[in-house]
Amino acid sequence: MLLHQSTWQEVEAYLENSRGIIIPIGSTEQHGPNGLLGTDALCPEIIAHEASKASDLLVAPTFNVGIAQHHLAFTGTITLRPSTMLAALLDWIDSLVRHGFDRIYFLNGHGGNVPTIQAAIAESYSDWSLSGEPCPYRLASRNWWELPGMAQVCREVFPIADGSHATASEVAVTYYGYPDSVKSVDMSPKVAPEGNFADAADYRATFPDGRIGSDPSQATPEKGEIITLAARDALISEATRFFQSND
Amino acid sequence: MLLHQSTWQEVEAYLENSRGIIIPIGSTEQHGPNGLLGTDALCPEIIAHEASKASDLLVAPTFNVGIAQHHLAFTGTITLRPSTMLAALLDWIDSLVRHGFDRIYFLNGHGGNVPTIQAAIAESYSDWSLSGEPCPYRLASRNWWELPGMAQVCREVFPIADGSHATASEVAVTYYGYPDSVKSVDMSPKVAPEGNFADAADYRATFPDGRIGSDPSQATPEKGEIITLAARDALISEATRFFQSND
Amino acid sequence: MLLHQSTWQEVEAYLENSRGIIIPIGSTEQHGPNGLLGTDALCPEIIAHEASKASDLLVAPTFNVGIAQHHLAFTGTITLRPSTMLAALLDWIDSLVRHGFDRIYFLNGHGGNVPTIQAAIAESYSDWSLSGEPCPYRLASRNWWELPGMAQVCREVFPIADGSHATASEVAVTYYGYPDSVKSVDMSPKVAPEGNFADAADYRATFPDGRIGSDPSQATPEKGEIITLAARDALISEATRFFQSND
Amino acid sequence: MLLHQSTWQEVEAYLENSRGIIIPIGSTEQHGPNGLLGTDALCPEIIAHEASKASDLLVAPTFNVGIAQHHLAFTGTITLRPSTMLAALLDWIDSLVRHGFDRIYFLNGHGGNVPTIQAAIAESYSDWSLSGEPCPYRLASRNWWELPGMAQVCREVFPIADGSHATASEVAVTYYGYPDSVKSVDMSPKVAPEGNFADAADYRATFPDGRIGSDPSQATPEKGEIITLAARDALISEATRFFQSND
Amino acid sequence: MLLHQSTWQEVEAYLENSRGIIIPIGSTEQHGPNGLLGTDALCPEIIAHEASKASDLLVAPTFNVGIAQHHLAFTGTITLRPSTMLAALLDWIDSLVRHGFDRIYFLNGHGGNVPTIQAAIAESYSDWSLSGEPCPYRLASRNWWELPGMAQVCREVFPIADGSHATASEVAVTYYGYPDSVKSVDMSPKVAPEGNFADAADYRATFPDGRIGSDPSQATPEKGEIITLAARDALISEATRFFQSND
Amino acid sequence: MLLHQSTWQEVEAYLENSRGIIIPIGSTEQHGPNGLLGTDALCPEIIAHEASKASDLLVAPTFNVGIAQHHLAFTGTITLRPSTMLAALLDWIDSLVRHGFDRIYFLNGHGGNVPTIQAAIAESYSDWSLSGEPCPYRLASRNWWELPGMAQVCREVFPIADGSHATASEVAVTYYGYPDSVKSVDMSPKVAPEGNFADAADYRATFPDGRIGSDPSQATPEKGEIITLAARDALISEATRFFQSND
Repeated sequence: MLLHQSTWQEVEAYLENSRGIIIPIGSTEQHGPNGLLGTDALCPEIIAHEASKASDLLVAPTFNVGIAQHHLAFTGTITLRPSTMLAALLDWIDSLVRHGFDRIYFLNGHGGNVPTIQAAIAESYSDWSLSGEPCPYRLASRNWWELPGMAQVCREVFPIADGSHATASEVAVTYYGYPDSVKSVDMSPKVAPEGNFADAADYRATFPDGRIGSDPSQATPEKGEIITLAARDALISEATRFFQSND
Repeated sequence: MLLHQSTWQEVEAYLENSRGIIIPIGSTEQHGPNGLLGTDALCPEIIAHEASKASDLLVAPTFNVGIAQHHLAFTGTITLRPSTMLAALLDWIDSLVRHGFDRIYFLNGHGGNVPTIQAAIAESYSDWSLSGEPCPYRLASRNWWELPGMAQVCREVFPIADGSHATASEVAVTYYGYPDSVKSVDMSPKVAPEGNFADAADYRATFPDGRIGSDPSQATPEKGEIITLAARDALISEATRFFQSND
Repeated sequence: MLLHQSTWQEVEAYLENSRGIIIPIGSTEQHGPNGLLGTDALCPEIIAHEASKASDLLVAPTFNVGIAQHHLAFTGTITLRPSTMLAALLDWIDSLVRHGFDRIYFLNGHGGNVPTIQAAIAESYSDWSLSGEPCPYRLASRNWWELPGMAQVCREVFPIADGSHATASEVAVTYYGYPDSVKSVDMSPKVAPEGNFADAADYRATFPDGRIGSDPSQATPEKGEIITLAARDALISEATRFFQSND
Repeated sequence: MLLHQSTWQEVEAYLENSRGIIIPIGSTEQHGPNGLLGTDALCPEIIAHEASKASDLLVAPTFNVGIAQHHLAFTGTITLRPSTMLAALLDWIDSLVRHGFDRIYFLNGHGGNVPTIQAAIAESYSDWSLSGEPCPYRLASRNWWELPGMAQVCREVFPIADGSHATASEVAVTYYGYPDSVKSVDMSPKVAPEGNFADAADYRATFPDGRIGSDPSQATPEKGEIITLAARDALISEATRFFQSND
Repeated sequence: MLLHQSTWQEVEAYLENSRGIIIPIGSTEQHGPNGLLGTDALCPEIIAHEASKASDLLVAPTFNVGIAQHHLAFTGTITLRPSTMLAALLDWIDSLVRHGFDRIYFLNGHGGNVPTIQAAIAESYSDWSLSGEPCPYRLASRNWWELPGMAQVCREVFPIADGSHATASEVAVTYYGYPDSVKSVDMSPKVAPEGNFADAADYRATFPDGRIGSDPSQATPEKGEIITLAARDALISEATRFFQSND
Repeated sequence: MLLHQSTWQEVEAYLENSRGIIIPIGSTEQHGPNGLLGTDALCPEIIAHEASKASDLLVAPTFNVGIAQHHLAFTGTITLRPSTMLAALLDWIDSLVRHGFDRIYFLNGHGGNVPTIQAAIAESYSDWSLSGEPCPYRLASRNWWELPGMAQVCREVFPIADGSHATASEVAVTYYGYPDSVKSVDMSPKVAPEGNFADAADYRATFPDGRIGSDPSQATPEKGEIITLAARDALISEATRFFQSND
């Protein structure tokens, strides 16, 4: 069930049986020569939407622009400043908590978002912790490629050069979701270099075409399907457990 | 051309011929018994995506949560505080300007967003105005139902009870875009009351099912198509002129 | 009754019979060759002070600097950034609500303030809407030239070239309020051009002497009196109704 | 010369001979049984306006609401939070500096404003100090009763019970400025107690009618004139020196 | 008793007998040729730690970076912007109040911190004053050299050229606390000039080696001991009275 | 070399040979029955100060209060909100960069700080990435127990029940640094439970005495010395490499 394609009365009915919601959260940033700028938002969205079809889990609209300052030397990248993203996450959380959602699960598609999501969770809890009242809700965040079992699935599908940015895995997931957007682009070197980075200029100097450690030319819709469906199942399992937990 | 389904190199190539981009911007909020919570984000997205297919205009990801505080008494509504939305819009603008976009056009789907979008535009210009340097870019915002000619189109398709929230027009556009989400719901009264509102409690007390002045049961995918395609054409025409202007 | 010229005990007594207050709100910005920099703050102040004399309405001090970034290329203009003005308005509102004022009416003298005032109203309501509690107060804003009947009055007094910035009407109101400040200045062209603007540099390039569409050399204290007194009556009527409403 | 009663061209001409401007700054807060809520804003305004008549100094609009949280238990008081006032002061400063004013002098009427004005000055300088570039402007603030010689003048006019809030001196200045607002109110005790305070509830419990240490029933327009004119002369002298300084 | 060298259970036990805590607060900024960059933080820390040994007063960790923008032209200086320091102080206060501390006493070592500390205190009280509820805690701030009797002590120890920045007194206190850090540096002129300053560039131009009005070459650990122990006693006396007060 | 115990001229001289600085950063929060509230700030401070003695590395004052909202149900804990800490870190960074430090290394003592430190680093880089200019400095952060080789050292010293909060290792480091603060406290159970937590109430309910998974009664100054000296050497090695790197 997708929140934005439901009526308010349908969501009200949903809340009679569940208090949990999944928020796909990602980024709009370069993903190398054959990866889509939306990759990091599209992957959790595709996986979560599959889960909403295969279960009765509710999925919110996608938080589609995140922390991408380091990719700004590549055209099309859009970033939030961390302080802005923190404020926006608090507003989303406050809104959902207002309706009675007490388990909010971020399915994240971008490693660079993790610190800011965690900081926002701490900021949200801080108000309760400072007040002395127990916080009535729980917030969780998970990178989709770190869902239980997913590391192994990705390794099996792409035993070499999956990489760490513009990975073969994530490009494949978007190709499964948007087969009309499959791009065939020559890349050189075949496998991109590994390394670290600081700001945007530094990133571009180190990784000229945007990839880190990956050979995303391996990506196909078929391989993407394997990863997507495995992630879907892992998500259903983990989110269901979280929504039912009393911790 | 959709930014998030393009590579950074494709967007770089686009910028050789155009400096403009369209950002669909909306809200996630109740739209009455048969309207989708995502209506205000989906409408500009549907229209802009149609425009991207029928022209060479570039469309950004959708800014999908806006100012919806007054709808929070209806389950599923998500709001940003105006101060948060202002900060987020500045980050989107700063990112796009960084790449050389100097004409940014917000296609808006929610009247409640207008003040905050305008405030953000003024805040963005303020830095330049205070510095004494001329601002090198231009920002514009348009509600899709106020595109040239659209008032008349909507009036022709829905001569009575189009209304002012959960309008027949906007519900029809989403039905055209998502025909699987057409809802058949009994509504009483057939035409919702008109009136004003302040906060969420006040809104719900005045408009019990969420609609204002509308009979959205008139909405069909077919009627939505008429409106969508008319809006698409008006958008292409207006955005093209804006992107080419030297004002 | 003027708040700042009353004692706290007088205001306490006022609150036994009324819960409403009028805040004149404007801007300090260029108003062409013969208009005062304070025009947009002085107009609502003059009108509201007249109303306070002709009725028992309470008038707050004037919020005298607003959103004027687009006028900063003209000397003397002072602006708030929209985010600052939003915060300041919330503090004024919170203070007055604390005393029991539950109807706060902004009489606005500057179109450029409208988005930020509306955003501040939404931000104020947001806290209540997110809390789930009904908001106990109501906020309203009205441009003085849009008070019921005023469009016609201004048209009758200045049938041609009233304009849209540094209007003959607003300059006349200030001349009525401050007859010693009447300025006789040659203007060329007699009627200023119409058009749009973005930041300060753009504004000055398009409107070299600051006026938009107006011939304010028509302004006289006598014509200002007609407009002021009509606005006074319309304000008394509208504010009284708002203060007594239970919506 | 009053900025808000001048045209932009008049202020532009002023800047050819002087780079300085005076900003009256005060508060809107209770001033005991016979003092006006606007006392702290009116005093510097009255003094500065007198100075503008007796010299060629330029005076800005009055910053009329300040830090008055401790007076909120008395009806009619309006406060800014310190963080808001800091932001607003920066915007005023940035606007004036943009036009070439490089000596900005705050004539303050409220002791409670002093920390926030000083913090704002430090924040404004911080940007320059962090950048490594020298700051091209200077900011100064002075309480009107601490202008050179004023302590003695006030002591001569009110040798006993001038007090420290709702002082006889400040009430007298407003009575001189607004003789129609002279209030005759019985006060008991004749001289209010001295003491300290924290928040609003604490203040009201300690000082039931709002005064601290004062007998403002001594105030008359005639005594106010003596103080006002002395302050006017001291202001002209000090501001002139500041505007001409090269420190 | 030092909070950071105690366990939570020890602090819990402390709260059974006292509700007060001392926070040493200072700055990290140049202190001339023989003064330590940490002087303004170390002085209140040394004095407060002495007090914690000679009494049962609880001392918090030191707030060690403050408002030092004007010293940034001297290497090693670290500043907070006033708005940042204000936010940080509120968080410290909120945390301590949460545990039941209702008397929080800042022992300040840097004059430049005073406005921001006072603004933070006003901001903290503002929430209560706006709410209408009485604030249950009290906040106090004292510069250590202004503790009762300290002006005389410093004058006796350094009858000439104690100065106003990089004073002989404060350097002596740090030499007492850190005798291994005594520096022997030639200074010329022997006594630094007096004067005012604005931003960092202005400060450095006026006071080339950082001192104002002082001859800190007079400082010795022995003289520092006299001052430290006198301040210790004055602190114990004043803080004890504050912690026990019911005002 | 400790910045706060050096003069500005000494730091200026340091910058002729090195552009790097170490900032110990921690938290003030409960550390179980025998751990100090300052543990997380004291550990990196102790290690960094040892490194400053054994090398020519420069160490800044300790950032001693961090993100500890989850510990607020234990008396004495002080937290910053993440948004506040982010702002404060930016001010520290901006100050140091102003002087020419272009390698800033945070030696962190608290896992809960990591997201906010990373968010602050991203926020700092964002300004450069959005501007299009390369950022001239580099920021790094390292938890002291994750310095190369430290996991093994801690495991060797405490093969069982080192734990994850109030660890035997960190308590031992503080005992080495402050042998007078060694506490002998009975703990039951001997080894604390493992688990997760959200806000402060949840933490306290799950971990009644504050420890997670640890038996810190094993801590002694002697064991602390082993760990401290190993960490010191690892820090010197890593920081030296970072300060000399050209990445």
